[in-house]
Amino acid sequence: MMAQPYNRPLSAVEMPRAGGISTMMRLPFAASPEGLGACFIGIPLDTGTSNRSGTRLGPRQIRAESVMIRPYNSATRAAPFDSIQVADLGDVAVNNYNLPATVDIIEAFYRPVVDEGVVPISLGGDHTISYPILKALSRKHGPLAMIHVDAHADVADRMFGEPIAHGTPFRRAVEGGCLQTDAVFQIGLRGSANTLEDYDWAHKQGFTAIRAEQCWGQSLVGLMEGIRQRIGDRKVYLSFDIDGIDPAFAPGTGTPEIGGLTVPQALEIIRGCRGLNLVGADIVEVSPPYDPFGTTAYTAANLAFEMLCVLPKVAYL
Amino acid sequence: MMAQPYNRPLSAVEMPRAGGISTMMRLPFAASPEGLGACFIGIPLDTGTSNRSGTRLGPRQIRAESVMIRPYNSATRAAPFDSIQVADLGDVAVNNYNLPATVDIIEAFYRPVVDEGVVPISLGGDHTISYPILKALSRKHGPLAMIHVDAHADVADRMFGEPIAHGTPFRRAVEGGCLQTDAVFQIGLRGSANTLEDYDWAHKQGFTAIRAEQCWGQSLVGLMEGIRQRIGDRKVYLSFDIDGIDPAFAPGTGTPEIGGLTVPQALEIIRGCRGLNLVGADIVEVSPPYDPFGTTAYTAANLAFEMLCVLPKVAYL
Amino acid sequence: MMAQPYNRPLSAVEMPRAGGISTMMRLPFAASPEGLGACFIGIPLDTGTSNRSGTRLGPRQIRAESVMIRPYNSATRAAPFDSIQVADLGDVAVNNYNLPATVDIIEAFYRPVVDEGVVPISLGGDHTISYPILKALSRKHGPLAMIHVDAHADVADRMFGEPIAHGTPFRRAVEGGCLQTDAVFQIGLRGSANTLEDYDWAHKQGFTAIRAEQCWGQSLVGLMEGIRQRIGDRKVYLSFDIDGIDPAFAPGTGTPEIGGLTVPQALEIIRGCRGLNLVGADIVEVSPPYDPFGTTAYTAANLAFEMLCVLPKVAYL
Amino acid sequence: MMAQPYNRPLSAVEMPRAGGISTMMRLPFAASPEGLGACFIGIPLDTGTSNRSGTRLGPRQIRAESVMIRPYNSATRAAPFDSIQVADLGDVAVNNYNLPATVDIIEAFYRPVVDEGVVPISLGGDHTISYPILKALSRKHGPLAMIHVDAHADVADRMFGEPIAHGTPFRRAVEGGCLQTDAVFQIGLRGSANTLEDYDWAHKQGFTAIRAEQCWGQSLVGLMEGIRQRIGDRKVYLSFDIDGIDPAFAPGTGTPEIGGLTVPQALEIIRGCRGLNLVGADIVEVSPPYDPFGTTAYTAANLAFEMLCVLPKVAYL
Amino acid sequence: MMAQPYNRPLSAVEMPRAGGISTMMRLPFAASPEGLGACFIGIPLDTGTSNRSGTRLGPRQIRAESVMIRPYNSATRAAPFDSIQVADLGDVAVNNYNLPATVDIIEAFYRPVVDEGVVPISLGGDHTISYPILKALSRKHGPLAMIHVDAHADVADRMFGEPIAHGTPFRRAVEGGCLQTDAVFQIGLRGSANTLEDYDWAHKQGFTAIRAEQCWGQSLVGLMEGIRQRIGDRKVYLSFDIDGIDPAFAPGTGTPEIGGLTVPQALEIIRGCRGLNLVGADIVEVSPPYDPFGTTAYTAANLAFEMLCVLPKVAYL
Amino acid sequence: MMAQPYNRPLSAVEMPRAGGISTMMRLPFAASPEGLGACFIGIPLDTGTSNRSGTRLGPRQIRAESVMIRPYNSATRAAPFDSIQVADLGDVAVNNYNLPATVDIIEAFYRPVVDEGVVPISLGGDHTISYPILKALSRKHGPLAMIHVDAHADVADRMFGEPIAHGTPFRRAVEGGCLQTDAVFQIGLRGSANTLEDYDWAHKQGFTAIRAEQCWGQSLVGLMEGIRQRIGDRKVYLSFDIDGIDPAFAPGTGTPEIGGLTVPQALEIIRGCRGLNLVGADIVEVSPPYDPFGTTAYTAANLAFEMLCVLPKVAYL
Repeated sequence: MMAQPYNRPLSAVEMPRAGGISTMMRLPFAASPEGLGACFIGIPLDTGTSNRSGTRLGPRQIRAESVMIRPYNSATRAAPFDSIQVADLGDVAVNNYNLPATVDIIEAFYRPVVDEGVVPISLGGDHTISYPILKALSRKHGPLAMIHVDAHADVADRMFGEPIAHGTPFRRAVEGGCLQTDAVFQIGLRGSANTLEDYDWAHKQGFTAIRAEQCWGQSLVGLMEGIRQRIGDRKVYLSFDIDGIDPAFAPGTGTPEIGGLTVPQALEIIRGCRGLNLVGADIVEVSPPYDPFGTTAYTAANLAFEMLCVLPKVAYL
Repeated sequence: MMAQPYNRPLSAVEMPRAGGISTMMRLPFAASPEGLGACFIGIPLDTGTSNRSGTRLGPRQIRAESVMIRPYNSATRAAPFDSIQVADLGDVAVNNYNLPATVDIIEAFYRPVVDEGVVPISLGGDHTISYPILKALSRKHGPLAMIHVDAHADVADRMFGEPIAHGTPFRRAVEGGCLQTDAVFQIGLRGSANTLEDYDWAHKQGFTAIRAEQCWGQSLVGLMEGIRQRIGDRKVYLSFDIDGIDPAFAPGTGTPEIGGLTVPQALEIIRGCRGLNLVGADIVEVSPPYDPFGTTAYTAANLAFEMLCVLPKVAYL
Repeated sequence: MMAQPYNRPLSAVEMPRAGGISTMMRLPFAASPEGLGACFIGIPLDTGTSNRSGTRLGPRQIRAESVMIRPYNSATRAAPFDSIQVADLGDVAVNNYNLPATVDIIEAFYRPVVDEGVVPISLGGDHTISYPILKALSRKHGPLAMIHVDAHADVADRMFGEPIAHGTPFRRAVEGGCLQTDAVFQIGLRGSANTLEDYDWAHKQGFTAIRAEQCWGQSLVGLMEGIRQRIGDRKVYLSFDIDGIDPAFAPGTGTPEIGGLTVPQALEIIRGCRGLNLVGADIVEVSPPYDPFGTTAYTAANLAFEMLCVLPKVAYL
Repeated sequence: MMAQPYNRPLSAVEMPRAGGISTMMRLPFAASPEGLGACFIGIPLDTGTSNRSGTRLGPRQIRAESVMIRPYNSATRAAPFDSIQVADLGDVAVNNYNLPATVDIIEAFYRPVVDEGVVPISLGGDHTISYPILKALSRKHGPLAMIHVDAHADVADRMFGEPIAHGTPFRRAVEGGCLQTDAVFQIGLRGSANTLEDYDWAHKQGFTAIRAEQCWGQSLVGLMEGIRQRIGDRKVYLSFDIDGIDPAFAPGTGTPEIGGLTVPQALEIIRGCRGLNLVGADIVEVSPPYDPFGTTAYTAANLAFEMLCVLPKVAYL
Repeated sequence: MMAQPYNRPLSAVEMPRAGGISTMMRLPFAASPEGLGACFIGIPLDTGTSNRSGTRLGPRQIRAESVMIRPYNSATRAAPFDSIQVADLGDVAVNNYNLPATVDIIEAFYRPVVDEGVVPISLGGDHTISYPILKALSRKHGPLAMIHVDAHADVADRMFGEPIAHGTPFRRAVEGGCLQTDAVFQIGLRGSANTLEDYDWAHKQGFTAIRAEQCWGQSLVGLMEGIRQRIGDRKVYLSFDIDGIDPAFAPGTGTPEIGGLTVPQALEIIRGCRGLNLVGADIVEVSPPYDPFGTTAYTAANLAFEMLCVLPKVAYL
Repeated sequence: MMAQPYNRPLSAVEMPRAGGISTMMRLPFAASPEGLGACFIGIPLDTGTSNRSGTRLGPRQIRAESVMIRPYNSATRAAPFDSIQVADLGDVAVNNYNLPATVDIIEAFYRPVVDEGVVPISLGGDHTISYPILKALSRKHGPLAMIHVDAHADVADRMFGEPIAHGTPFRRAVEGGCLQTDAVFQIGLRGSANTLEDYDWAHKQGFTAIRAEQCWGQSLVGLMEGIRQRIGDRKVYLSFDIDGIDPAFAPGTGTPEIGGLTVPQALEIIRGCRGLNLVGADIVEVSPPYDPFGTTAYTAANLAFEMLCVLPKVAYL
């Protein structure tokens, strides 16, 4: 085989899928972001969760299930490994006993990645992680547009009196000036609520909510077209909470809500990001203890691959 | 906090969702129906089942999973706990060794509830329970209209020679004069059959069957509009067998059938009952041993909450 | 009960569903194909798999879960047990240590079945089995048209250097002259790919690919109409890989791909085969270790029953 | 291979262990007891249970897991299939809706078996089944000695007011004159109790109780020697409730109690029955839903094989 | 039934075991400690864990599995409900986002319980909880003797730099003057270690370590006799980490270690506490996500009942 | 921290246990054996299995569960990472479709490892792998003594007619001159047998069999003393089939047999190898699909660590 200019996932001809050290997609592990175009980073955190925990094991299981993903996207003809240098940067050494400290640890980990111009695709971990990631990204890029897929708006002010938790990241991010609030799109919101004022704060900031009920039985291709137009060439972050998807497809999560998006809709959303100026993305809230055979983690691993496929410099064959 | 006129679910600010004694939605337990507008009642029965058992544990698991449900319906803006007094009345002490005795025990439990004017939302338990509940309700209200969601018509005459079992409740209910047979709507019927005459008896009584195949890929909003018109202001019972829903969404049940309703369709059915004169409802056939992580029970808990949200006196904000 | 001209599944009146020796649908076991019109055959093979194994236990679990299926199809009014003689022929004694030998063993088992004019419905086992079955069938019938439901095209030339594996059966079948390549329809293809040339070989042979993305949110009734027209009265084989269906419905398989067909679509495909000249069918890749409560196997059992319902001589009431 | 005088389990050379119709040990199914020396009979009953149900599926799962058991006992050198004719007689068609009727059905099934001189080894099903089996056996043999392994004495008078349930069989058997009460040995009793008088009735009848605490850390070889001496040449029944064994070894049961027997102790008990005049045996209370990977059922299958190995006419090589 | 002077668990004659609101042992829930002799308290905490989380759900699952425990101890003839007033006090509203705050919350909850003279039996939750419980108890009783069953000594100084976590409670308790360090007995220690100095600190304080290896194959009756002599009439706390027991018996925990105590040994330890002046006890580290069928929680529930049975004022019949 | 002369497992202070790329014990991955004293090697093979498959995923799950193992052995005071250079060499790229080819692939992988003087500790994979490993080792070291822990002797001549399978490795190894047959000790043999001559061949070669029954209730310290004397200073291989251990402790395997060794006995065996001249070891037959929460894999990971602790050059503190 002739020398490849870019890293490639270990193929099934070199090593059967059951073997090999399980990095994301069996890509090389990299100790530094230097020279990369994009990277995968794991964040093994679950102490921001409110109902069922377990997401600290998400990165390990997503990587383990990712071994079956091959380098080309047969649906879109994306060829990320022909176009950019990608590696697995390993995990952030978070402090599960101290959430405020963890916010600082994550931000510190991402700064050199972002400064190097690398696009991070993060594997959660609970949704708390999006706040420090947005801090690191907006410090370089300025306030970002955001597409946020989730059952929950995650804009609470406090959870059990605390400012840092998996239900508050986007409130904190707005307060921290990380977001362009007129270009935040929350897709898949649903479920019971503590008050009907829950969504008002987000609405007042200028967020656009697309409830799950509006998506039922619909293709989301049109929705994404509209969102792309509204975002234009702004820099964008994509935050994907696996509980945006219906529990039939993704049971392994801590705060499931019935009546969610289908996986085809999830794919339409991510594939619909093609052409946007994505500077980062995450897939969060995969809880392996509730997913013993890896269905949810495997779904997350595929969605992370689809995110990679729509990064700005990726070639399409 | 100022005094509430009505019971409210214990909130996550008072107690984390992992804690608290698990009544339905962490509502207060009530020893008597007095003063209530609606109530939840569990019926831990499974000896009416024909294939896999386990539904006797349904009420306990539905309550355990219900702890995440919050008081307001963000989709419909229903505010049941601002409008009516709701409590958990606990479980009926059924006799799993003797089905005919259990029919009497259940009916005796429901009579004072019904006489007090309380709307019971019952957590099964196998479908046998609907017969004695209908007896108690129709004794007060006269024959009822019924919306029945299920994979099976449950109008067999005998099962293994016995008149009381989970496949016979509506045959017995018709014989007992509990139903207005021209206003019975069975939604989601499907699967293999012992004879093609299976559905004839129901048809002859005047029941309307809406097969699952007719629902595939459809919104059921229109269907429910038609049903509401046909029922008008008659008193109605809603009986929801969780196996009406496809096993992808609700695997934890004893007689699953492939090709069933989706959860969005289930929500359209229940939300489509708004405006009807509901006098009772049940959610049955949740079998926890086949649902170790509670997905099915959680779905059932949410459907029971949605039933509460469409009761006649519930306010919408 | 008066004598039946044809075998019938053991009914729940004779034996509760939890009881009885678990042949397919609790039909009689037959030691020879003589006198049968159709039969079920199990092939407990998994050494052709590439990612997760376990399909060797597929036939046993499909039979165990099939006990709930009753003799009539309430959706289509098919009455197979009123029309043809059906039995369970048991399992092929495959050699899991030697795939080339297994190909010969399977072909040898099927030859007398096919020669007797019996239509085999095969319960896999991994997809390797379709190659020797096609060999046996085409030896009698000549090259066959084929409807192939699957996430993967299974037309690789080699897997880890080997010609016989679960990713190569249809390459081998084409080379062996078993297929009418202009009448091969592959439905449900999707997922990541080793190269974008993956599907070229199939396309060059004349295969028609219907990707999963083309099916999302669509009824497949029209698709099947077109396929029936294109096939006409040619002899047809139906090969159904359970991973054609989305993992939400069928998690118990070894190489799942997200974004697959729904079960209603699967039923539309099989029911859409009515009128075709089916000479054989299979349902493959059910992996029980990833399906501890039998949901996937139960789905497969129902699909096998639906296949039986569309065989040429089956009566519709 | 030359003709065998006796049935033999299907070997792994004839059929891989994953294949073959799953009768007990892959022995031939027999429609009648005629000509047999011993037989396996399944009883798919669970409506006699008090806590968790599921034992109706016990016979099917025990058979499925029994496929790995080979014909010779390497520990004791027993060769049952060289000595007696053994077959699987299938299941009793019990009525799960009516326990008193089921008692009659079981007794009627066993009478011709017993009359033919066949020793039945029964696969439960809940412990209710031992009562009608003892009725059928004692009708022919007169009152029997009994070795009973269990966490519970099962001598309650009523459960929820009913005389027939899984906690009452030996009370009913004593009343029915089926037992020689001075030769009843109950091994493994333990757990919490409704009253401390629980065991008094049994004691007054002359039963000998060997509590689990007396067995902790002990070999039971000596205990069995003493029991054999006390029983002498009386006819004996062996009733083995899987919950006699600790839940670490056998979690799949409905009323587990911690601190139970080990499997080596269970084997010492059964192997210690060699030389006794056994006329029947059962293994009961295996509940497959709590045993998704078959560990408990596999243990039960092995214990049933060990029971076969100590039947009076079995040769030892 | 005549009036009982003391609360009793709801019996199976009043309500089948599958029914009833699941308090501990189906005892009454009490809103205040007033008038009680002993109580059960749940602490739904898991953010002190280091490897796998999930213990926040421990109290709920222990209660759910406790429904099968009956009021008398058939092994020891203890009759706690004939002797003292017992109730379930519900759960402490811990703050899973803030461990130091949670220490204060727990201590504040226990102070009035302890001041009222009630003996608390606590249901964890991770082992962090023992520190604030010991603070509350020692504030009233002075420094306590302690019997501590665990795979780990839990005397680390810091975990990931933090002073409060599930590996530090007894370091903090010694520093806080809560323990009589010459009367601390740690039973079941084992496993790999970060340094071999791990156990030195404890040794220097005067703790006595009994390693699991010393217990293998031994009855612990003699060990407990020695411990009772050394403790004499000092006030004692019993802290029982479920991972002290081998994972074969108790897999549902976050930091399992192979080669642990057996359940009979665990029972010998707790029953060996009879006669000691116990002022409190806990059972911690039950992690329900790793225990889907409740075996571990059921074991914990039984151990908590056994703890109740050895409290100072309990009568033995 | 000062520079370490040897590789060390990543500590929990550097990275929480839930994080980090999962090599064995979170040791560095090494691309070559150069400079190592010992190494871990995975072999993801399962096509040599006869009953249930799944062991191809063993290496990945053993590594994933190994993350909790710390560098020192608190029981024996072994300090392997203070004494020798250890790394994870990754997996052998076996061919699951072709067992004879795989034997050659494995042998070729091990030759340079062995030639470099590195002691390989292998993570299976099914037991087939021991044959090529023994070939590679004996080529350098000459015929080896062997301690073999297993339920089965694995000395069959053919399985389904094939010479290479998981039941034949030691027959082939004897034929290949890899073993000193008078110094082979097989511990834990038990279960049913195809013929009672099964063990004769091994006996005739001079193998010593220690049946599980001989071990029940015994410490194996004395047995190992005797074995060490008989082996003396010969070079030794340790082959440990996880099914040697009882399924209560290690359910995740394909051919379990009841009545096996306890984990304390397993530890006594491995720790009893201290002082022997070990040149290689393996732990095989871990089947993750039957071990969804990793208990079996975690046990295997610990046993592999204990093997490392008894290698010749390991220091004891």
